[in-house]
Amino acid sequence: MSNETLYIYGKNPIKEAILSNKNLINKVYATKETKQDKDIMALQNKYQCVFEEVTKEEIAHRVGKEVVHQGICASLYGENLFMSLQDVIASAKDNDSIVVLDEIEDPHNMGAIIRSALAFGASAVVFGERNQSPVTGTVVKSSSGALFHIPLVKVSNISNAIETLKKEHFFVYALTGDGEVSLERAVFDTKTVFVVGGEGAGIRSKIKEHADFRLSIPINPACESLNASNAVAVALYEWKKQNKA
Amino acid sequence: MSNETLYIYGKNPIKEAILSNKNLINKVYATKETKQDKDIMALQNKYQCVFEEVTKEEIAHRVGKEVVHQGICASLYGENLFMSLQDVIASAKDNDSIVVLDEIEDPHNMGAIIRSALAFGASAVVFGERNQSPVTGTVVKSSSGALFHIPLVKVSNISNAIETLKKEHFFVYALTGDGEVSLERAVFDTKTVFVVGGEGAGIRSKIKEHADFRLSIPINPACESLNASNAVAVALYEWKKQNKA
Repeated sequence: MSNETLYIYGKNPIKEAILSNKNLINKVYATKETKQDKDIMALQNKYQCVFEEVTKEEIAHRVGKEVVHQGICASLYGENLFMSLQDVIASAKDNDSIVVLDEIEDPHNMGAIIRSALAFGASAVVFGERNQSPVTGTVVKSSSGALFHIPLVKVSNISNAIETLKKEHFFVYALTGDGEVSLERAVFDTKTVFVVGGEGAGIRSKIKEHADFRLSIPINPACESLNASNAVAVALYEWKKQNKA
Repeated sequence: MSNETLYIYGKNPIKEAILSNKNLINKVYATKETKQDKDIMALQNKYQCVFEEVTKEEIAHRVGKEVVHQGICASLYGENLFMSLQDVIASAKDNDSIVVLDEIEDPHNMGAIIRSALAFGASAVVFGERNQSPVTGTVVKSSSGALFHIPLVKVSNISNAIETLKKEHFFVYALTGDGEVSLERAVFDTKTVFVVGGEGAGIRSKIKEHADFRLSIPINPACESLNASNAVAVALYEWKKQNKA
């Protein structure tokens, strides 16, 4: 797990991080103007966060010039965002689902997948350390704060994580255009894992081989594939329809 | 309809635009290196496109410095991408669906929606001129080329477009978190319109009022809403399940 400082930015992500009650925020940096924002002042007064007044330029220096930071950023205790695979497995119920990312490099996609995972009630999002977007401010923003409300699991090897999940009686579906099972016919009646691959090459073949089934979403042949986050959303929607709490 | 030159960039989008056979490409600009790419040479030889050799800097000047253009961009005849609402209506079959965007400002979201619209067999994507991402190189790239294979309709007023579609016996669903009909219970047995709103405020209230029904996708209350493109993908998946060709 990397020990680099993780910064998040934007009023809503920071509000979500504070309200998540997970002791995530190390320090909030805000411009004079943003510090006086009514919502931000309420957070400052109610929660024990350290606020430092800085200039816009100092925020841009931390989070990048090209992002819309709304005059506020915060450094996180990144380790409090993560859970171990063992802990996720230990707390999994009979019909839970887990999403595994196989090299999702686009932070917008990663954020949108985390958002859908929370929305449709998946138990965790697992991802690797290589060729994978790390958790960045952009991921947090794209997840619309969802990232603070669902366990994230960072593993050194995706194949090993899948093998571990299989041993623990998870049924592993690889979401792929050439799947042998159509989503419309799939029956999700046990602990389920959905693996989704990166935008370019899709799921790596060795990861596909580890899966119990390859699952495809029926689409128009004129369209090569779905966006990764859209594919996950559709699969989880169908899964949730069959597994209402 | 704007007459500004529309540039697209990246090898795949340009390949898709050429192969769409819609006479979209005005001129291709490529670096010496990219011109010698095997795929690009094959396109050059097979199709009657004008290629001009330029430097990387000249490409960046056209499409922006921050984009990954792979040494190639092309100017389009934008008008050949668009269809009129009347023509879309005239060619609509009994169980067709149309996606209407109500102020989707994020070009990545717009591209992903167009990609899902094509994937699940919608007939067209309608959008307005104001507070709406125009068709840009980023939209093309995010659509993964899908944009060249589905009619786009640009209208001056979304409310009027919805009224027109209703008069033509389209049933209009507004995708919204507070919908009165759950997607899982919706029956799509006639010509259908799905309206989706922007990331911030969602669908404008006056647009919601124009809809026949407000449709919600059942999600975890811990998650405020779905990403707009994910919501469209899920709705179209359910629609397609009920309306197979």
